[in-house]
Amino acid sequence: MTPLAPDTLDRLRRISTPTLTTQLFKLGFRNTFLHGVRPLCPDRRMAGEAVTVRFAPAREDHAGYEVLADPSYPQRHAIEHIAPGQVLVMDCRGVASAANAGDILIARLEVRGAAGLVLDGGIRDYVSVQQFRFPVYALGPAAPAHVVRHVAVDENVPIGCAEVLVVPGDIMVGDSEGVVCIPRAVADTVATRGIEQEELERFILAKIKNGAPLPGTYPPSDATLAEFEAWKRRERPDAYL
Amino acid sequence: MTPLAPDTLDRLRRISTPTLTTQLFKLGFRNTFLHGVRPLCPDRRMAGEAVTVRFAPAREDHAGYEVLADPSYPQRHAIEHIAPGQVLVMDCRGVASAANAGDILIARLEVRGAAGLVLDGGIRDYVSVQQFRFPVYALGPAAPAHVVRHVAVDENVPIGCAEVLVVPGDIMVGDSEGVVCIPRAVADTVATRGIEQEELERFILAKIKNGAPLPGTYPPSDATLAEFEAWKRRERPDAYL
Amino acid sequence: MTPLAPDTLDRLRRISTPTLTTQLFKLGFRNTFLHGVRPLCPDRRMAGEAVTVRFAPAREDHAGYEVLADPSYPQRHAIEHIAPGQVLVMDCRGVASAANAGDILIARLEVRGAAGLVLDGGIRDYVSVQQFRFPVYALGPAAPAHVVRHVAVDENVPIGCAEVLVVPGDIMVGDSEGVVCIPRAVADTVATRGIEQEELERFILAKIKNGAPLPGTYPPSDATLAEFEAWKRRERPDAYL
Amino acid sequence: MTPLAPDTLDRLRRISTPTLTTQLFKLGFRNTFLHGVRPLCPDRRMAGEAVTVRFAPAREDHAGYEVLADPSYPQRHAIEHIAPGQVLVMDCRGVASAANAGDILIARLEVRGAAGLVLDGGIRDYVSVQQFRFPVYALGPAAPAHVVRHVAVDENVPIGCAEVLVVPGDIMVGDSEGVVCIPRAVADTVATRGIEQEELERFILAKIKNGAPLPGTYPPSDATLAEFEAWKRRERPDAYL
Amino acid sequence: MTPLAPDTLDRLRRISTPTLTTQLFKLGFRNTFLHGVRPLCPDRRMAGEAVTVRFAPAREDHAGYEVLADPSYPQRHAIEHIAPGQVLVMDCRGVASAANAGDILIARLEVRGAAGLVLDGGIRDYVSVQQFRFPVYALGPAAPAHVVRHVAVDENVPIGCAEVLVVPGDIMVGDSEGVVCIPRAVADTVATRGIEQEELERFILAKIKNGAPLPGTYPPSDATLAEFEAWKRRERPDAYL
Amino acid sequence: MTPLAPDTLDRLRRISTPTLTTQLFKLGFRNTFLHGVRPLCPDRRMAGEAVTVRFAPAREDHAGYEVLADPSYPQRHAIEHIAPGQVLVMDCRGVASAANAGDILIARLEVRGAAGLVLDGGIRDYVSVQQFRFPVYALGPAAPAHVVRHVAVDENVPIGCAEVLVVPGDIMVGDSEGVVCIPRAVADTVATRGIEQEELERFILAKIKNGAPLPGTYPPSDATLAEFEAWKRRERPDAYL
Repeated sequence: MTPLAPDTLDRLRRISTPTLTTQLFKLGFRNTFLHGVRPLCPDRRMAGEAVTVRFAPAREDHAGYEVLADPSYPQRHAIEHIAPGQVLVMDCRGVASAANAGDILIARLEVRGAAGLVLDGGIRDYVSVQQFRFPVYALGPAAPAHVVRHVAVDENVPIGCAEVLVVPGDIMVGDSEGVVCIPRAVADTVATRGIEQEELERFILAKIKNGAPLPGTYPPSDATLAEFEAWKRRERPDAYL
Repeated sequence: MTPLAPDTLDRLRRISTPTLTTQLFKLGFRNTFLHGVRPLCPDRRMAGEAVTVRFAPAREDHAGYEVLADPSYPQRHAIEHIAPGQVLVMDCRGVASAANAGDILIARLEVRGAAGLVLDGGIRDYVSVQQFRFPVYALGPAAPAHVVRHVAVDENVPIGCAEVLVVPGDIMVGDSEGVVCIPRAVADTVATRGIEQEELERFILAKIKNGAPLPGTYPPSDATLAEFEAWKRRERPDAYL
Repeated sequence: MTPLAPDTLDRLRRISTPTLTTQLFKLGFRNTFLHGVRPLCPDRRMAGEAVTVRFAPAREDHAGYEVLADPSYPQRHAIEHIAPGQVLVMDCRGVASAANAGDILIARLEVRGAAGLVLDGGIRDYVSVQQFRFPVYALGPAAPAHVVRHVAVDENVPIGCAEVLVVPGDIMVGDSEGVVCIPRAVADTVATRGIEQEELERFILAKIKNGAPLPGTYPPSDATLAEFEAWKRRERPDAYL
Repeated sequence: MTPLAPDTLDRLRRISTPTLTTQLFKLGFRNTFLHGVRPLCPDRRMAGEAVTVRFAPAREDHAGYEVLADPSYPQRHAIEHIAPGQVLVMDCRGVASAANAGDILIARLEVRGAAGLVLDGGIRDYVSVQQFRFPVYALGPAAPAHVVRHVAVDENVPIGCAEVLVVPGDIMVGDSEGVVCIPRAVADTVATRGIEQEELERFILAKIKNGAPLPGTYPPSDATLAEFEAWKRRERPDAYL
Repeated sequence: MTPLAPDTLDRLRRISTPTLTTQLFKLGFRNTFLHGVRPLCPDRRMAGEAVTVRFAPAREDHAGYEVLADPSYPQRHAIEHIAPGQVLVMDCRGVASAANAGDILIARLEVRGAAGLVLDGGIRDYVSVQQFRFPVYALGPAAPAHVVRHVAVDENVPIGCAEVLVVPGDIMVGDSEGVVCIPRAVADTVATRGIEQEELERFILAKIKNGAPLPGTYPPSDATLAEFEAWKRRERPDAYL
Repeated sequence: MTPLAPDTLDRLRRISTPTLTTQLFKLGFRNTFLHGVRPLCPDRRMAGEAVTVRFAPAREDHAGYEVLADPSYPQRHAIEHIAPGQVLVMDCRGVASAANAGDILIARLEVRGAAGLVLDGGIRDYVSVQQFRFPVYALGPAAPAHVVRHVAVDENVPIGCAEVLVVPGDIMVGDSEGVVCIPRAVADTVATRGIEQEELERFILAKIKNGAPLPGTYPPSDATLAEFEAWKRRERPDAYL
């Protein structure tokens, strides 16, 4: 797997998902935001490498509480073997009415040092899980255990989550708005350009709040960009070291 | 109607809806959670016997503000005759864009001692109703009165609510996650087993937070169950009186 | 355009959207509430005249970041030319997964004195925008910029927003429940009658909380109405000046 | 129940559902067409008085093949007791993926002289049923029996079917386009006016095919209406007897 | 408006919509097929320049049968002024349950020499319209007239139809599968390349039917392409004139 | 893989999908019918062992026409290696607006002796494919190639198709109503019991057509069953050999 620059994850964690989708769009990626997947703790940020679990529809001969005792059951195996800093992403086919994890499994993820959990399904014990302050992104609360609708069938394969492709090793970034999946090969580029875009947009927002008109300011004209560069040189000389 | 054990409602009020759906699943009931029906006061708990009202689609000759003055109109009649401790459940066919109750009707329910209101429709005066702190579970806020979409046609018949069967006399239990409908005949059993499951899961969660691995812990092996029994004997001797 | 009575907007701002939809229903308007469009700041109220922008589906030859630099691009032009007190309403075809505005554009609306923003689409920079305390009503947060799904094609034409007709000059009123579009020709009438209805309903709610039964109280009988008039004369003599 | 004029059903059977919805709209009824309910035999026409059955969601203790042997089970009882010329209308909550009737039950309806079957659910044995040439209107084919999703709970109560109110005794009319529910009280009026509208529209269509412009022709001006009256007098003198 | 090559429309009429979407995809257009819009006469083909009508949601003060008598009402005006060979495209917001045209309006389109009608709404008098054999593409049959849900508000503006952008002057092509909107600027290119692709695919299909394996055949290797060129030279020497 | 009885596939091909879902329900399987997946040739029947392909959402770096030339691309590889009598089942996540196969790929399946193709996605070249008379079951026609929405990522893994679990080796049976997935382990049982049920139901249908009432006939009483056995002995003595 392509190695990442050492500070890429730290940078990505500071960039908002709107900025990330814009940078990805400029690189040609139109479908990277997991629509409908919402944070349980909107003020937490998350960035980490994806590992995946895939669920298929339940059938009476393939699902039930007894499968959960098998240590090789993909849902349990993936949690038990996650590495520190990784994000577990589950393909739940967009079914909001069943829960693919609850407080006990998420506590185990946290103990193992995982960076987060992302799924296009439900979460049970929702309020307790919110109190963990561990980054979880899901469709919402749902009481029934996953076995009423799903059976876990695969680990670490490319999946769809909220109709976005997630390949193991891709970088998942989450903030208060939701989750973006960044193809691993462009993660360094997106991190670098995203930081620049955010700085520029803070500058633009300040100008707008001071009464600047949209034309020439947003998007910035050459004059505005020059003004920004001068400001950066003045206010943030370290940015030029 | 089958009588309930005297402490069943009190027990059920302390059990979370995830635990209840699990116990119901183990008794063979797969579809008992009213998906999409959310609490207006997530920190209130509710347990009580269901009485029902059924709405059908409005038609210009059968709906309008004038019907509301008729004391036998099922929506008004059911509220005016609810008994203390009962939960009013309304079949609104999943229509989120009209409100089947607002602050005045819900104030009347509260004055009469009802235990709660559950509907797969909208609520108007949403924020005021939240301030009552009365347990209400609905699809969300909606300003238009029910007469734009509905006419109440029946009282105390079996209904669907959020695609779950609710029979008058069933037990409705609500928490921060939503609402479960417990068939009356199994309510005592579910209450007893649910309390046990919750105690066991608190024990398991504590172990997981202390670093226990999933295999053997969740689901619990015989060794873990024996450990749990010993702990209970030690920490909660009253559980054995 | 029909002029409004001088205090109509002030009155409308104090009337709840449930009351407004009821008054509109009584005038024959059944479809005036923008279902699913929710406030970013539920405790802000909004009332103002609508100006509109219409988005059509994006196509690779008609959308992209480059169009945004054109001062005549309808989304930018409408914001740059909004008059104080107006509400910008955007027809986003109900697409929740892309954002039709973010913090910079909304800051510009605020600086220009707009009364609010209403759209059946997403908002990016959701949490920052909430901190502006400017009245915004949308389907929810979405990170991707509008160019992935939309191209702005028109300004100040009749549009649909959340399947409700909005004609430029109509009055948009928002509260914690959502947004109502009031046809301009009936705005004065709705304002007058809405204030009366709210006063009556406060009186009824107080009676219900004190134990009055629904029949005769809600809807009010002639006796209750007479009691209300007496109360008003006593408690609020100014209402009769 | 209001008696119908003796030829109302015969007239209604000859009027198209577009014409019927137009006449109902002119009488103030906006929601009378059962959208999505399609004929199994598009060239058959149907008109008859509604009797109804209501289904609620299945639950493991209230549904299963054993209930079907009970002669009082509403689905079976309604079929066994339908009177000649009546139309059985089933409220299946819009669930297309289960079948609420199949060849055997529909054969029994036919033997008993029923005028048709209408449901917002599925039909099994679809192709065999089409060969009966009995008027059936449904959402489409579905193999699973109704017990996987439904339990029949009521007979001859007001129901919703495809989000249209159907009151026992209303008149159901079906053609190749679908089904309209005509409130019983206006059935005679709709029959009379519908026949007139259809005759006028045949006249207008002939003029348009001969090159008449829309303005003045459709909707017809006074001149066109006079021309129509003259034509009718000439071509169909019996219409004036 | 860019002029088209003289034979572009004739060529496009012979190319299938799958081939057209493939050619458009290769030119960078991903969203050009109007999903869900189906032919009333699957064996008719259609190609022509788009003129558009836009519908907004109905409101009691802006819709009703009386507006239809106004010759400037956009739905009527567009039909009355369509030029021979043009295709009328209507933006009905994907509402399948109301009809935006019926037999009389479509007869007028045919008399005026229009090339077709495309809408993301319903058609009434469906079976009669099928007998006209005029190319109509719609969501399906619906009895109620458009005034129950829509009001026509614009003519010849860019619209969305089935979530595809249609700009007046674009080329609409329809076959048994549905309708593609071809941006006018690329219509000549698509016509030329589409004919070539179809000829190549007929050659490939014949090989596959004779037992050729997929690898090397589909997509074609250089050897297969050379074989195709030789075959074309032999069988269709005119293609090289 | 469990071997099947030699005549199981032949029997299953003669049993209707309604009968199969009933037998599966009686064995405890509630979710086996692929709702919405319709036959291109309703009069063809299909029975065969499932092989599977899984599609995930497309991303600009993982999908495009170039991947199709790779013989290991799962969609192409699965077709090229299917064994006679097998049914290819594709997990297309229920996306109806893109086509996961067209005439050339389906011609190859037919040449290789496959028994059918089942997918919860679209088919292009729909009418041509219908003329092959090869059993294909899909959501409907769609012109765009799969690369606009999908990338094939796996072969012969358990998948969901139309929200039904399909495990490689399961038996897919299709008729005019749609497709049932029979878990391999119960295929022999279902085949045996299904034939018996169909014979009994033909007997019951004949009785009903002759005027027998539902009670005692359907479901059959002991007397009716005895009558059936006597009839079978008389009319079909071979059934007792």
